Amino acid sequence: MRSIGKNFSSDNVGPISPAILQAMIRANDGAAPSYGADPWTARLQELVRETFEAPDAEVFAVATGTAANALALSALVPPFGGVYCDAAAHIENDECGAPEFFTGGAKLLTLPSRDGRLSPAALSAHLEASRAIGVHKSKPTAISLTQATEWGTVYSLEQVRAIGAIARHLGLAVHMDGARFANALATLDCSPAAATWRAGIDVLTLGATKNGAMAAEAVIFFQPGRLTDEFARRRKRAGHLWSKARYLSAQLVGYLEDALWLRSAIQSNAMATRLADGLLTMRDVRLLHEVQSNEVFAVLPEATIARLEAAGFVFYRWYLPPGEPVAPGTAAVRLVTGLDTNPADVDALLDAAAG
Amino acid sequence: MRSIGKNFSSDNVGPISPAILQAMIRANDGAAPSYGADPWTARLQELVRETFEAPDAEVFAVATGTAANALALSALVPPFGGVYCDAAAHIENDECGAPEFFTGGAKLLTLPSRDGRLSPAALSAHLEASRAIGVHKSKPTAISLTQATEWGTVYSLEQVRAIGAIARHLGLAVHMDGARFANALATLDCSPAAATWRAGIDVLTLGATKNGAMAAEAVIFFQPGRLTDEFARRRKRAGHLWSKARYLSAQLVGYLEDALWLRSAIQSNAMATRLADGLLTMRDVRLLHEVQSNEVFAVLPEATIARLEAAGFVFYRWYLPPGEPVAPGTAAVRLVTGLDTNPADVDALLDAAAG
Amino acid sequence: MRSIGKNFSSDNVGPISPAILQAMIRANDGAAPSYGADPWTARLQELVRETFEAPDAEVFAVATGTAANALALSALVPPFGGVYCDAAAHIENDECGAPEFFTGGAKLLTLPSRDGRLSPAALSAHLEASRAIGVHKSKPTAISLTQATEWGTVYSLEQVRAIGAIARHLGLAVHMDGARFANALATLDCSPAAATWRAGIDVLTLGATKNGAMAAEAVIFFQPGRLTDEFARRRKRAGHLWSKARYLSAQLVGYLEDALWLRSAIQSNAMATRLADGLLTMRDVRLLHEVQSNEVFAVLPEATIARLEAAGFVFYRWYLPPGEPVAPGTAAVRLVTGLDTNPADVDALLDAAAG
Amino acid sequence: MRSIGKNFSSDNVGPISPAILQAMIRANDGAAPSYGADPWTARLQELVRETFEAPDAEVFAVATGTAANALALSALVPPFGGVYCDAAAHIENDECGAPEFFTGGAKLLTLPSRDGRLSPAALSAHLEASRAIGVHKSKPTAISLTQATEWGTVYSLEQVRAIGAIARHLGLAVHMDGARFANALATLDCSPAAATWRAGIDVLTLGATKNGAMAAEAVIFFQPGRLTDEFARRRKRAGHLWSKARYLSAQLVGYLEDALWLRSAIQSNAMATRLADGLLTMRDVRLLHEVQSNEVFAVLPEATIARLEAAGFVFYRWYLPPGEPVAPGTAAVRLVTGLDTNPADVDALLDAAAG
Repeated sequence: MRSIGKNFSSDNVGPISPAILQAMIRANDGAAPSYGADPWTARLQELVRETFEAPDAEVFAVATGTAANALALSALVPPFGGVYCDAAAHIENDECGAPEFFTGGAKLLTLPSRDGRLSPAALSAHLEASRAIGVHKSKPTAISLTQATEWGTVYSLEQVRAIGAIARHLGLAVHMDGARFANALATLDCSPAAATWRAGIDVLTLGATKNGAMAAEAVIFFQPGRLTDEFARRRKRAGHLWSKARYLSAQLVGYLEDALWLRSAIQSNAMATRLADGLLTMRDVRLLHEVQSNEVFAVLPEATIARLEAAGFVFYRWYLPPGEPVAPGTAAVRLVTGLDTNPADVDALLDAAAG
Repeated sequence: MRSIGKNFSSDNVGPISPAILQAMIRANDGAAPSYGADPWTARLQELVRETFEAPDAEVFAVATGTAANALALSALVPPFGGVYCDAAAHIENDECGAPEFFTGGAKLLTLPSRDGRLSPAALSAHLEASRAIGVHKSKPTAISLTQATEWGTVYSLEQVRAIGAIARHLGLAVHMDGARFANALATLDCSPAAATWRAGIDVLTLGATKNGAMAAEAVIFFQPGRLTDEFARRRKRAGHLWSKARYLSAQLVGYLEDALWLRSAIQSNAMATRLADGLLTMRDVRLLHEVQSNEVFAVLPEATIARLEAAGFVFYRWYLPPGEPVAPGTAAVRLVTGLDTNPADVDALLDAAAG
Repeated sequence: MRSIGKNFSSDNVGPISPAILQAMIRANDGAAPSYGADPWTARLQELVRETFEAPDAEVFAVATGTAANALALSALVPPFGGVYCDAAAHIENDECGAPEFFTGGAKLLTLPSRDGRLSPAALSAHLEASRAIGVHKSKPTAISLTQATEWGTVYSLEQVRAIGAIARHLGLAVHMDGARFANALATLDCSPAAATWRAGIDVLTLGATKNGAMAAEAVIFFQPGRLTDEFARRRKRAGHLWSKARYLSAQLVGYLEDALWLRSAIQSNAMATRLADGLLTMRDVRLLHEVQSNEVFAVLPEATIARLEAAGFVFYRWYLPPGEPVAPGTAAVRLVTGLDTNPADVDALLDAAAG
Repeated sequence: MRSIGKNFSSDNVGPISPAILQAMIRANDGAAPSYGADPWTARLQELVRETFEAPDAEVFAVATGTAANALALSALVPPFGGVYCDAAAHIENDECGAPEFFTGGAKLLTLPSRDGRLSPAALSAHLEASRAIGVHKSKPTAISLTQATEWGTVYSLEQVRAIGAIARHLGLAVHMDGARFANALATLDCSPAAATWRAGIDVLTLGATKNGAMAAEAVIFFQPGRLTDEFARRRKRAGHLWSKARYLSAQLVGYLEDALWLRSAIQSNAMATRLADGLLTMRDVRLLHEVQSNEVFAVLPEATIARLEAAGFVFYRWYLPPGEPVAPGTAAVRLVTGLDTNPADVDALLDAAAG
């Protein structure tokens, strides 16, 4: 297999991890019951419960992050409800209205931030204000955190717990969009349980696609009940229940077994740090945010950007956080590493940038 | 790989066809642009146009038949619209309200039949009546045909053309749910074009999952335009656009290349015919419908059913067509063959049934 | 005010009852708090609780029956749910998909009947069957009864109780579409409580528009709680919360005070009976259904229909119950009386029919 | 009828204008065809065409502004679309998600402003940016202007035309939320045509409820066609088609005849100006916005507010525009006049404020 080499555009351009592909091939063995009554789906359930130390957790696999997020929100929020999220959240900006579609018209209530993290204080203030308004406003019923955030930053456990406490106090549910949860967990260096349900998360979208799977995300309900009963039907009527469900489950089994997910995230995080460290040695380069996962947001001189493009590196120019100034002759870029980004790939980029 | 052997419960219990798995593995080669800008997706487009002799056709791959059908209908029918279908149609009975969800509340207008085929005459009469009623009724805007039907029967080209003509006359769109289109095409023994757009079909859901793919269906618009512009956004907001789209496209490329789809369908159809022919030699057995694809609906003595179950064969007891009598001590069953059902599997079942 | 005279087309062609108009004019007195914080709305709440002997009932006024039904169902049924109703029900045939829209895509599960009444036995059998099917089907979560039915018949208390018992046993909610509830109640000759919550009804759509109001229907929850909390927001986001809510409430206050609703229904029922009795004295006339409210469904000779039309009477030709034969030279008609239909109006029609 | 006197809380607390009530009573005359086939509805159509010099305009009456706005947007915007509006717009803040519900999940794309008016420049820049993004974003398909705005300001004709030109250039539709259109028109002092379709408005929600009607708003399509065909069904399935439609139409006929709408708006605007002028003579009072309609947003000393409250005046404390500072010991209030606010009412408030 070729390395992804010069492509720093996204963590979704890479191939399937060998171990995940092998798990799929192992599942391709004769007949198996359809719609999730197969042994790989049972094994996934077991693995999730072990991994998250959550013996009652229920897991539902789907193929995309947009589906996972929107389905999870639809189980938490009524059509007349509202979901708090950061103004930079994926659910607000990159899902073409999927949350509105799946919830039947609920509203995303966005709060601005510089770094993609909802501030507990701003959230508290907004919730306080909205409680007085009555039926003219969508009813706030959930909070969605992106972990790691769209700016590559990571909520600390204290921050998650503070938001969890606000939610519990007011009876709101908390969803975590963990498209890059493994990358965040590698940085937090704590147990999966501590990073989620012990901090107040009710439902986790556990991403695998950006971290080596073909197309697989797990929606995990930590406290099942009515919600999970409903969820099975919601998934079916959204066309996200695979008849040959084993191939979705097998990906996630391969992902979680032998800690592949964490090993992959540690590798891509390390490459992002190597990249950021290298860039910071250069003149006129600054980072927009601390690198806490596998994304580097940097302001570079246009000349540097031109050199990288000329050398065949692939990446996106990016927008700036609200109110952020940018010096003339410079621009922001996003550089994303994947589990198969090698030190040599990073060093080649740094060399090209240095000119 | 083990044969699916004794499992006649559905064509979704089988494994991935070797050729399709190989196509996926070939696609797993280093970095590739995401969201469909990859070469496998371009190749799929090309293959569909060639296969259907439709140089302007647009194809969109998704992972499930429910998604393919519901998305296709949502592009054809406004939320205040209605879709004619047979009362036995999959979209009416087996998709948990997906068409209603994706269309934003359109109504399925069902007409009863004995064999799963909409009758052009009944359709015409109903349409005539509904034109006078005005805003109190959902506006009929589309017709959906299941080919092969849920009873394993196949619309003749004449029947499809008759419905196409009614639709054209009244300005309705025609959707074909082709979850088992390859099986129908094998029976019709005509070109894919003749079976679809030349007979008046506007949009085809081309199934692959039941015929050897892992999870892949193609929505094909024969006359693109506004509908396909919309469709790309509809697919995205439903969570059905894969970031690593190459793995969806590769399945369908493997499916269509070298006529794998037809070879597979011919094989499973032949096994169904072998099965039906064998059953008909037995006393007290009758078929509910002519076998025209890979499903056999038979009325068997309870003793025969018991022998099959005791011998480890897996299949479903089934309901009867509306108004169909059933003799005491007999019951209906459904027996489905797949592309990896072998003559030996069929003969073993026949032996067990014979007792 | 002119009598509605020769118009037997519907009970929605008549004017506002004088007492209801006076109630509206009394409410038109200077400033009043908006959105239901006015005294007329408080009085309506009180009146409903008294009238239905239901001290905890919550009432929500809206302007149309379609809104009342669809909002009520949306509070009872999740988007992936199903609602049982008779195949002739208004919610199925005359609301242009409003239930599907308001519920976010739930499915109406229709059972056929000759007279518009759901049969407890058929309902039981269908529910039994659907329990086994799982996520591929919309989940049955409510039953909706039309009282009086679309064929002018009335469920007996025993029938309502039998359905209520089935629902309670399986955890389904029961909605009553009472667009003509007053007409049914006049026939049942029992208390409003006996006809509703004591028989197992959870939510009643109490019609007033067809019985003398301008535009007013009351959605009554007999056992409030989460549902009524939600309902206020559902009504607002559907645009059915009037800012000047007093004018909606005043109509219903005028309707319920001094038993106007029952007096009006008794009058129009009596006129329907007079009409039916007169028609039955004529040769070649038969009724399709027993007259139990203010609608007469009759099969008349075409010559009789022609005489009525020539004499300026306004009414609809109607369709026949499923499987009902009709003799050549005859056709079905619907004749509807209103609270301002006079004996002289009826006798004039009978004279014209007699020729 | 009592004056609304001390109530400055909203223009929806007032009674029905005598002329409008009389129009309703005139319509209450015997039988009339239902669902809009009555002469008052025909007269409304005629009046709207004359008033707006738009011979092809189509008008649809509904009872509430939320319904009018949300239905209008649902005709303009697909479920995967986006609607630009000011961040202070009623559709964003006060309709409990009705636009999201009626459109089937479209997204409101808000741009901030100080005074409630969308800036053509900001709109242009945002549209430019969003064109590049593709299927991951809701597709911008409409712009909604509130005229007068939620801050009581009025778009100049130049501003409306500039936005109309942007929309035409990019193929977007323009909706005007005219809940207080008459108040704006009185200030603009131009023809209704000049203020709407000649400036680029495609659909107008013409408010009457806040300006003397009981419950009536008109959705006016200036260029009918497919949209109006659809709209009739959309209105029905939302439960907003009255069976006794004459009473909705009669209100609007009374509203438009003899220029009642403009005379009423001129009166309430004049009272707002009188109020603002009086307040500005007081120390420590400032207006947040120029008074251009019937709303006064003022920052008052807390002592003044307390005196007004003690004297029995009813009004709301209000929030501040984004980034607006407020001196300690002062707070913002909203004071709204209605068509039955008298000079004496205003002067009494000013006297109480002066202390």
